[in-house]
Amino acid sequence: MLIVQKFGGSSVADAEKIERVAGIIADSYNEGHEVVVVLSAQGDTTDDLIDKAREINPNPSKRELDMLLSVGEQISVSLMAMQLEKMRIPAVSLAGWQVGLDTNTAYGAARIKNIATERISRELDKRRIVLVAGFQGKNKYDDVTTLGRGGSDTSAVAIAAVLHADKCQIFTDVEGVFTADPRKVKNARKLDEITYDEMLELSSLGAQVLHNRSVEMAKRYNVDLEVLSSYVKKPGTKVKEVVKSVEQMKISGIAKDLNASRVTVVGLPDSPGIAFKVFRALGKAKINIDLIVQSIGKGGTNDISFTCPKSDTESVKELLETYKENIAFDHVSIDDSIAKVSIVGAGMMSSAGIAALMFEALFDAGINIQMISTSEIKVSVLINEESADQAVSAIHAKFFD
Amino acid sequence: MLIVQKFGGSSVADAEKIERVAGIIADSYNEGHEVVVVLSAQGDTTDDLIDKAREINPNPSKRELDMLLSVGEQISVSLMAMQLEKMRIPAVSLAGWQVGLDTNTAYGAARIKNIATERISRELDKRRIVLVAGFQGKNKYDDVTTLGRGGSDTSAVAIAAVLHADKCQIFTDVEGVFTADPRKVKNARKLDEITYDEMLELSSLGAQVLHNRSVEMAKRYNVDLEVLSSYVKKPGTKVKEVVKSVEQMKISGIAKDLNASRVTVVGLPDSPGIAFKVFRALGKAKINIDLIVQSIGKGGTNDISFTCPKSDTESVKELLETYKENIAFDHVSIDDSIAKVSIVGAGMMSSAGIAALMFEALFDAGINIQMISTSEIKVSVLINEESADQAVSAIHAKFFD
Repeated sequence: MLIVQKFGGSSVADAEKIERVAGIIADSYNEGHEVVVVLSAQGDTTDDLIDKAREINPNPSKRELDMLLSVGEQISVSLMAMQLEKMRIPAVSLAGWQVGLDTNTAYGAARIKNIATERISRELDKRRIVLVAGFQGKNKYDDVTTLGRGGSDTSAVAIAAVLHADKCQIFTDVEGVFTADPRKVKNARKLDEITYDEMLELSSLGAQVLHNRSVEMAKRYNVDLEVLSSYVKKPGTKVKEVVKSVEQMKISGIAKDLNASRVTVVGLPDSPGIAFKVFRALGKAKINIDLIVQSIGKGGTNDISFTCPKSDTESVKELLETYKENIAFDHVSIDDSIAKVSIVGAGMMSSAGIAALMFEALFDAGINIQMISTSEIKVSVLINEESADQAVSAIHAKFFD
Repeated sequence: MLIVQKFGGSSVADAEKIERVAGIIADSYNEGHEVVVVLSAQGDTTDDLIDKAREINPNPSKRELDMLLSVGEQISVSLMAMQLEKMRIPAVSLAGWQVGLDTNTAYGAARIKNIATERISRELDKRRIVLVAGFQGKNKYDDVTTLGRGGSDTSAVAIAAVLHADKCQIFTDVEGVFTADPRKVKNARKLDEITYDEMLELSSLGAQVLHNRSVEMAKRYNVDLEVLSSYVKKPGTKVKEVVKSVEQMKISGIAKDLNASRVTVVGLPDSPGIAFKVFRALGKAKINIDLIVQSIGKGGTNDISFTCPKSDTESVKELLETYKENIAFDHVSIDDSIAKVSIVGAGMMSSAGIAALMFEALFDAGINIQMISTSEIKVSVLINEESADQAVSAIHAKFFD
């Protein structure tokens, strides 16, 4: 069997953890499988590198930031190779450019365009474990790109897809996908299975179990995906097209996202095409925005609010300022002390009153809702950051207790 | 003018130092020059990475060690690019593989085979400062290689050679080449000029001002080389083919090398070809050895002693053990508390009694000489590590005071 395994940064944070993870990898290898391993940067390495960069330049170019950040994964894979060498297991570490993981030019949030399989296959043929630096690739200029936070999941699934791997195992510090964060919500339950679509909503909403693009890709290429613990040896959660759910749960999970800011463009003229102008500018800059609400402001003007990743807040603000005269708005205000809390469930559509139940839970807990957004399988609300954990617990109790 | 500038690890150790160095680079750029900059890893980064590796595996493969160590220079160049961006000066950082710096496959001590000029030239044409990660390249397998300690000097000179740069400036934390280490020897004098050959002996002997291969290369391609301070703005020491020396000094400098171990192969059979077998084995493993002495041991056997870099001691020992039956020696003993102290001078040959003067200085200081080696322009002695500084001072006083 050809297995792709991915281990996150906390699983390889120090020498001891690297040794443990090497044990898991070695077990698969010794069972006779071909093993490709994708690793993230150790522990806080990426954050430390970002701090180092910001000390020098608060707003470095994304091209240079990618060049800097990519070293984190390179460190992880070379150290893991050394650990496996010590165990007399042949292994080889590869950076993104060595694998031939080609991306577009969107530094900091690059999309994978193609993965060459030659090098990985050649190394597998030599019965080596192939250790691939996650999160990174190269673009047509031979420049280093990164896939954005959590991009190692995407690397793993993409590699599993091109190699037609038999399975792709994402090892994390939790035992699988839970109805809510088990560290925060006492009665959170582990799910044996979840659909790609549900997982997609959960991860894009900040459940932090799987990177959303990795799930999209797993769905598109039908990759056999499993989320499991790197600490406890037992089955995790399988992510698949359709699940055979024993009990029909109303929702699959609750997610919290603290990594968003709310941006409000105040005092837009009430004329056609204005919203289009705003969002085209943001789209060109490849900034992911979400939860859009347009409201009536003072004196015949409109306000548009939306959320974007916290890390993009400064760029968004700068970008909008350059359009100030062209679009003729009054000013931009930012609120980065917000949280997005969402419920997700494939069965939501067929079951009336799900959203109402969520709003009731928040009302009972005295939590004010700032913005609401819904889709076929989810309901998201924007609330005050401080109330986020309380909100998740209250909603979980309402649906699962 | 096209200028290649190289800054060592201590010159870019932190944000403040990076800012200072960026000022030097920017000055050259703003004078209208094309500037290529080669950087080493920050401060202790390389040592820290080696510690990280050894914690996991005391004897990692050189291939993986190179993969790990190469990140140090990548961090330096990306941070420098960010600093220059902040100063609104266009710059781009490049790793060895991006430059197209091709080496042989001797991991850990790779030799440069070819440097592609396309990428660097293209970036210079855009009026960008090109920041090249020193010390690293790639081999024919697309694997990362490193050039060995101090290899950034070699990167700089090699790049200066292929680009036909007008000058190559090596910035260090000293003001140039001194007759001895000015931090240790009070009356050490700065030399305005020194020949390639003298510099070559000084650097290969551990003067730590320039990497020896960089000087060899500068000599071969006649690169206009200057060693100067990154802290004080004044002329340094020019390294050239022939110097116009005002006063004919007996020697140009005294060097100390603490980075060597003495290896003794004890009890070799007294038969032809034995020394050849020993050194062929070491040569194949690409281990640099030096100062060879063969002496008569007990019972008709011979002992061979030689020095090698401290970092290779373990490999040398392991390697020799595998030849134990074949070569039939008794055992290998290692002494890593030794120092090599040398005097260097192009005028040495024409001036009798230079070596005797050195030995006299050591005798007066009560320092025992373990081994001696001489060449046309140098005399080296092996002494106890603890006496190294005292030896250098005593010799310096004898020649210069």
